[in-house]
Amino acid sequence: MIDFVFNNPTKVYFGKDQLQHLGQVVSGYGKKVLLTYGGGSIKKTGLYDKVMTGLKEYGLEVFELGGIEPNPRIGSVRKGAQICKDEGIDVVLAVGGGSTIDASKWITAGACVDFDTWEFFSTDKKPEKSLPLVTILTMAATGSEMDAIGVISNPETNEKYGRSAPCLFPRASFLNPELTYTVGRFQTACGSADILSHLIETYFNPGESMYMLDSAMEGFMKTVIKYAPVAMAEPENYEARANLMWASSWAINGFTRTCQVGGWSCHPMEHELSAFYDITHGLGLAILTPSWLRFCLDDTTVDRYVKFGVNVWGLDPDQKPMVIARQAIEKTEEFLFGTLGLDDKLSKVGIGDENFSLMAQKACKGTFINGFKKFTPADVETIYRMSL
Amino acid sequence: MIDFVFNNPTKVYFGKDQLQHLGQVVSGYGKKVLLTYGGGSIKKTGLYDKVMTGLKEYGLEVFELGGIEPNPRIGSVRKGAQICKDEGIDVVLAVGGGSTIDASKWITAGACVDFDTWEFFSTDKKPEKSLPLVTILTMAATGSEMDAIGVISNPETNEKYGRSAPCLFPRASFLNPELTYTVGRFQTACGSADILSHLIETYFNPGESMYMLDSAMEGFMKTVIKYAPVAMAEPENYEARANLMWASSWAINGFTRTCQVGGWSCHPMEHELSAFYDITHGLGLAILTPSWLRFCLDDTTVDRYVKFGVNVWGLDPDQKPMVIARQAIEKTEEFLFGTLGLDDKLSKVGIGDENFSLMAQKACKGTFINGFKKFTPADVETIYRMSL
Repeated sequence: MIDFVFNNPTKVYFGKDQLQHLGQVVSGYGKKVLLTYGGGSIKKTGLYDKVMTGLKEYGLEVFELGGIEPNPRIGSVRKGAQICKDEGIDVVLAVGGGSTIDASKWITAGACVDFDTWEFFSTDKKPEKSLPLVTILTMAATGSEMDAIGVISNPETNEKYGRSAPCLFPRASFLNPELTYTVGRFQTACGSADILSHLIETYFNPGESMYMLDSAMEGFMKTVIKYAPVAMAEPENYEARANLMWASSWAINGFTRTCQVGGWSCHPMEHELSAFYDITHGLGLAILTPSWLRFCLDDTTVDRYVKFGVNVWGLDPDQKPMVIARQAIEKTEEFLFGTLGLDDKLSKVGIGDENFSLMAQKACKGTFINGFKKFTPADVETIYRMSL
Repeated sequence: MIDFVFNNPTKVYFGKDQLQHLGQVVSGYGKKVLLTYGGGSIKKTGLYDKVMTGLKEYGLEVFELGGIEPNPRIGSVRKGAQICKDEGIDVVLAVGGGSTIDASKWITAGACVDFDTWEFFSTDKKPEKSLPLVTILTMAATGSEMDAIGVISNPETNEKYGRSAPCLFPRASFLNPELTYTVGRFQTACGSADILSHLIETYFNPGESMYMLDSAMEGFMKTVIKYAPVAMAEPENYEARANLMWASSWAINGFTRTCQVGGWSCHPMEHELSAFYDITHGLGLAILTPSWLRFCLDDTTVDRYVKFGVNVWGLDPDQKPMVIARQAIEKTEEFLFGTLGLDDKLSKVGIGDENFSLMAQKACKGTFINGFKKFTPADVETIYRMSL
């Protein structure tokens, strides 16, 4: 069992009536706020007005950066960092899902350096400080609201990387499950697949596991499996939305990963899909995960699949290990492609094999790909082909 | 489901080789350190020398307060606060179990006020600030290493209360499971009973529960049930000690309690036992818990027992709810009194009924007692008698 450091300083305001504290919390960090958001759905839902009212009550001066893309781009980050510098912004308030929050993290870091923010991705440079970040989450998926990671795409180079630094934890995050009532069936499914992927990638770990963390992860996985279909069928089911939202934070806020050795595999493989084809992250993960699980299954890894199958999927433990393992993969597929109704093949979402070789090379560029197994580009290409 | 705020800023260094960072971490808070500890076992085990070496390497000036009692007393807190004031202490380093850490929390608060520290317990005064606290944990039990609560006894008045304040979170805590190898069978059993009690008191909650938190708590309870007997039989089993240690922190660090409505019952009832008879906290909890579970069981509460019985104890769900509930209580008793070998009656630990009435009155003084059910002093006295 490895040594680890755990620290998560984000203060979470969870529930229906917590936004009443917004102005007070944000004003604790200064007077000038950069409000960041995505395509503008927050204006349709009335959230924008509510936020502005809360900020104005505390006399805050608000600047805005809207239009942050899904799979957020370095261009938006550069724009935001520039506004921060030009206007002397004190605090960034991100309102949206993982994309808006990820971009905003790097805006807070970019605001504090005099070089191009993409150098945090293209070189070894690490942010030492950042502007304070407050978030209002509108979608349960990436867990960005309670972690220190941000994934950014560079369309000029077809690159998409996640990087983290302790200074990137949001200082405070507002999680109101009601704000996810308007998230549609497909995005709810993709978000749930993303949460599940964070847990599966951590659970299938080459290091010595820790029983208490395994138990927690199994519980979080069962939470997603139980409530994702409920939220899809009844978008305004508070219990379902609340469980998915809090599970999204805890799937990736550091707690479950404290005994993790090595990185994740599906995420870097998927980042290449999104970088080349701009597909939804959770959908790409859903398509790749069963192929990856099949690829990694052998006599040395089967025990992990058995634990997963029995404790998460409730499979009969009195079968041969390899049988339980295969059933566990099938159950996972049934959930992702049956219950959640996501496409099960890359070809169905417009992805052919034309870039597999290049994507596989790029996915293997960092060490992050070496999670449950060590991967060569040829391994990654095989998994892409298995998912075609 | 209630709204809540979650924030836990403690930075945890977990594992075998983390103490190498001690000097660096402590020196980040200043030059003058007050080292606090209990009966001196840290001198026998060599930990004291190791700590001193680590601190001296960073040129820290060390003052000491040893002899902090189990069920720590206000006298020790007063002494420590006075040293902090007299010597201009910058940071307190607590080395020990929950008692030493609890006392140290209130030393850090007492150092910052000009009135007697007991007023934080006898009046509504809340600490607004404190000296920074760093801890080195030597026993898995109270979870004090990662929460903001400290329980203090006042032998002059036979009072024992727990109070909390956000400024009381340790800034950093060092958790090395190897340091608990020397904890004997009885104390390992009591510590495990304490962890389990934190989880049971939270799990049996009158409010609407949250599935993902229930799952996590069930996992942590199973962790204690699985590893406590292993640690008792093989004191140097790292896996067992590590699981118990990390479970002790997570049982009470705020995470599982985010949906909790109302307080706990067994803890205030037990604090009276310890205040009057100075028995070990975990032992008192173990004796009271099954009686309390029996007392609270009725048609309105039975569902919770069923979930507990099926998910934690693996009971057959196809039985009548009341049958499962009773079996769950019996399983809990078997574990506490059989597997852990703890005494099952107050009379066996030298407690008679002579103070029941007064203790029941005092236990009901705060609102904390009103957890799973609302209690009158007569109810509490009944539970004491059931445990006699």
